[in-house]
Amino acid sequence: MSRYFSARFAELEPYVPGEQPQDQQYIKLNTNENPYPPLPEVAAAAAAETRKLQLYSDTECTGLRRILAGRLGVAPEELLMTNGSDEILYFAFMAFCDEEHPAVYPDITYGFYPVYARINRVPSREIPLREDWSMDLDRMSAEPGTLFIANPNAPTGVAVSRDEIEAVLRANPDRVVVVDEAYVDFGAESCVPLIRKYDRLLVTQTFSKSRSMAGGRLGFGIGDPELIRDLSTIKFSTNPYNVNRLTQAAGVACLEKDEYNAENCRKITETRAETAERLRQLGFEMTDSRANFLFARHPRIGGEELYRELKARGILIRHFSVERIRDYNRITVGTPEQMDTLVRTIRTILEEKA
Amino acid sequence: MSRYFSARFAELEPYVPGEQPQDQQYIKLNTNENPYPPLPEVAAAAAAETRKLQLYSDTECTGLRRILAGRLGVAPEELLMTNGSDEILYFAFMAFCDEEHPAVYPDITYGFYPVYARINRVPSREIPLREDWSMDLDRMSAEPGTLFIANPNAPTGVAVSRDEIEAVLRANPDRVVVVDEAYVDFGAESCVPLIRKYDRLLVTQTFSKSRSMAGGRLGFGIGDPELIRDLSTIKFSTNPYNVNRLTQAAGVACLEKDEYNAENCRKITETRAETAERLRQLGFEMTDSRANFLFARHPRIGGEELYRELKARGILIRHFSVERIRDYNRITVGTPEQMDTLVRTIRTILEEKA
Repeated sequence: MSRYFSARFAELEPYVPGEQPQDQQYIKLNTNENPYPPLPEVAAAAAAETRKLQLYSDTECTGLRRILAGRLGVAPEELLMTNGSDEILYFAFMAFCDEEHPAVYPDITYGFYPVYARINRVPSREIPLREDWSMDLDRMSAEPGTLFIANPNAPTGVAVSRDEIEAVLRANPDRVVVVDEAYVDFGAESCVPLIRKYDRLLVTQTFSKSRSMAGGRLGFGIGDPELIRDLSTIKFSTNPYNVNRLTQAAGVACLEKDEYNAENCRKITETRAETAERLRQLGFEMTDSRANFLFARHPRIGGEELYRELKARGILIRHFSVERIRDYNRITVGTPEQMDTLVRTIRTILEEKA
Repeated sequence: MSRYFSARFAELEPYVPGEQPQDQQYIKLNTNENPYPPLPEVAAAAAAETRKLQLYSDTECTGLRRILAGRLGVAPEELLMTNGSDEILYFAFMAFCDEEHPAVYPDITYGFYPVYARINRVPSREIPLREDWSMDLDRMSAEPGTLFIANPNAPTGVAVSRDEIEAVLRANPDRVVVVDEAYVDFGAESCVPLIRKYDRLLVTQTFSKSRSMAGGRLGFGIGDPELIRDLSTIKFSTNPYNVNRLTQAAGVACLEKDEYNAENCRKITETRAETAERLRQLGFEMTDSRANFLFARHPRIGGEELYRELKARGILIRHFSVERIRDYNRITVGTPEQMDTLVRTIRTILEEKA
């Protein structure tokens, strides 16, 4: 920290992304990336777009919003495109939280929420997940403020139903509820169908996971046009050109073949079920994950130890240095071949420990 | 504005980007874009990179920083890559301004500075440019706070010398000086050679103008590793993956053929001189612009009127609804052919008015 850094941020602890080692070829099961690459049409679209790269990108993302609105069954003015869904979440903390409206979220959830609360200097309330890792929506509702509900939650993978979220919305007529659906396409119920009924519901989604575009940085918010306008005011006061031309073109091409993405999600959920079953046979306990990862612990090996042993054998999974989940690891669901290697490697590790 | 929008931002007036009409083919001389498209190598690099689009981008921009550091004669740890230079400027307002450190900048300068001050709720001091549009660095130095110096300035195009900026740095040992060099490659002196001498100097640049990548969103800051670390703390607390894979790959390919960009800058400065001479013959007054635009007024036609007349004839230039510069327009320097059409069209407009 330089002596010029504003004292406002002296206590700021940045988010720590999962490792992205450059030195070796790992089987990467640590950052919830989709194992299936985008279609060649996406490459063609990006290449064609570079011929106009000297021109600014469309701040409104007109073409992209049009096709996406069609896919979601909403209107373009109910959408705001952002640089990943991290950015729309950051905007939501700015727009809808302040001293009078603390941010309310579970103790175990997406690690960026506390960072966004701190950098925007808004108070926050962390409500413990229940013992079974389910979200305590009653206690969250009892706290005043803006609710942030990751559904499915990370890193637990546990989902809540649309009815449960609607009950929260009905019980709370005067506050914004943000439902972070980064992983929704792997088996949870989306709240998008509720946005016209509740003008204070903001749903956020991303192309990173189910649409194989983590490296493209494309996320979006879905909500009442007035909420979207507030977020747009923030966007136009920070970085109006946040989504570049190449990503917009790639996003359109990706949506034009959206059945490919749906098929990949189907494959991943199938692989998730198979992997969960094999890990259970090895003695693992797991949540009922509705995301593209498993949240697992083994009675005979600590979370950090398993992480280290796998890393030494060329497989990366994610361990969090957080007391309450120290026994667990978050394991991204890759291809069947990758998961076969994972299971066989874990079996060897457990045998060596026995 | 929804009833949920935080009262903190009720007064926020977002930045208004130049028009990007979708309806008609205009000669676009309104947003300072480079008229020369990127090389085919950039298309090839972006297309190849889409094959890894399912994987997160490198938060450190390792390859890009390495080659850029070589071009600039600095070390990679003296660089931070951002989503356009707008983002690094936004980060600088966050990191280096607060209640005790107001933002200090001229009354007429890049329109995002006041927006960044307001959204970060830091006080600001606007110091009037002198009558000849030169920057009053003495008065700026006399105000306590963090200095923001666009060099060349926009929309005036007027530059200050490196010696003048060094004098400011010498006279102000205890504050950050940000030099925004978005347009520096068109004929101003860069302050990059000063960063090792002054640990409180942050220089910002962009690939948007001189490197034909406005649609790619790639900017960067150059400064002491400690300043860069502060800005990096902000980046990792907002959007660590701010620069996507396609843009990183395009940026590397662009730098590998940097002589093409230098040659385009040479052509643009040549076209600028020719156009300025022809406009002078038509009666225009202009500053000595060192940027890829001209800042011009005509004694017989108002700024807004000229803007409207040109738009009606298919040519877009930029007029600002700001009292002090209402007689002026900012005209981007395009290709010789575009500028020939511009000059001939203006001649017709003036003749019709006579």
